[in-house]
Amino acid sequence: METEETEETAETGRPVPAVLREARRQDVPEIVALLADDAIGAGREGPADDAYYAAFELIAADQRNQLLVAEAGGRIVGTLQLTMIPGLSRHGMLRAQIEGVRVASGQRGQGLGRRMIEHAIEVARGQGCGLVQLTSDKRRPDAVRFYESLGFTASHEGLKLPLG
Amino acid sequence: METEETEETAETGRPVPAVLREARRQDVPEIVALLADDAIGAGREGPADDAYYAAFELIAADQRNQLLVAEAGGRIVGTLQLTMIPGLSRHGMLRAQIEGVRVASGQRGQGLGRRMIEHAIEVARGQGCGLVQLTSDKRRPDAVRFYESLGFTASHEGLKLPLG
Repeated sequence: METEETEETAETGRPVPAVLREARRQDVPEIVALLADDAIGAGREGPADDAYYAAFELIAADQRNQLLVAEAGGRIVGTLQLTMIPGLSRHGMLRAQIEGVRVASGQRGQGLGRRMIEHAIEVARGQGCGLVQLTSDKRRPDAVRFYESLGFTASHEGLKLPLG
Repeated sequence: METEETEETAETGRPVPAVLREARRQDVPEIVALLADDAIGAGREGPADDAYYAAFELIAADQRNQLLVAEAGGRIVGTLQLTMIPGLSRHGMLRAQIEGVRVASGQRGQGLGRRMIEHAIEVARGQGCGLVQLTSDKRRPDAVRFYESLGFTASHEGLKLPLG
């Protein structure tokens, strides 16, 4: 699961490249902090209580869900979740869905998000998926352009219904 | 799983209300025909070969996926798939996703699609989901308005990346 990549030493002055790996239970508090480190997410997250750990256990036990993290210098600096969804349409095509993408504010603009999405796409391809999909909040037009630069097409409306 | 509803008799001249239930293996050919009975889906579906049956078995064996059908007069006249996705965000909120919504062309405009989506929302609520989401092709503006009339908000872009 971990990507192979030569690590830059701290002496070069460049950031140490992050290692992408599956999340572990002890990562939960840092992942929750990342989810909250966002203008839209800030009001609806934290602290890392039992509800987050219970959700982590559901994901860890489900072969169709993977929670990925990027770790650099002993810190969690990025996260995303990948869900494989079987379906009848398009000749029984398996699709992959990306949710919960976050990169630490201090690490943005350095290509980490791109590496994470490209990694997720390769995992999806390796599992035989014919499509990768995600939704992106219209209040983040930069994010939509970022995904388009990775080859995604904003062909669909993403509709949400909160349940009271 | 089946909804309770008084059936109208054929003598009234009104269509017999459809029963909503989980799909069975023998429904696969009719579901595939429904997926193909659509301007966008026509070019990419059928016939109901092993790939569709393999996908059906994956769905049937997965507690987080439900394939629903609407049956009326011994025919499958509607289908949708519901996927429950665990996740850390929003305090470990479970979300439900709807995919592959189809209503037979002869049954459109009679409220069946609305019943199917409302049923899916109730299933999601019963499983403790905090959100129901779906994407809708921008080439079907009527569909987007239909989901908005059910309370959904088109707050997100739905981005897709086909894998070659």
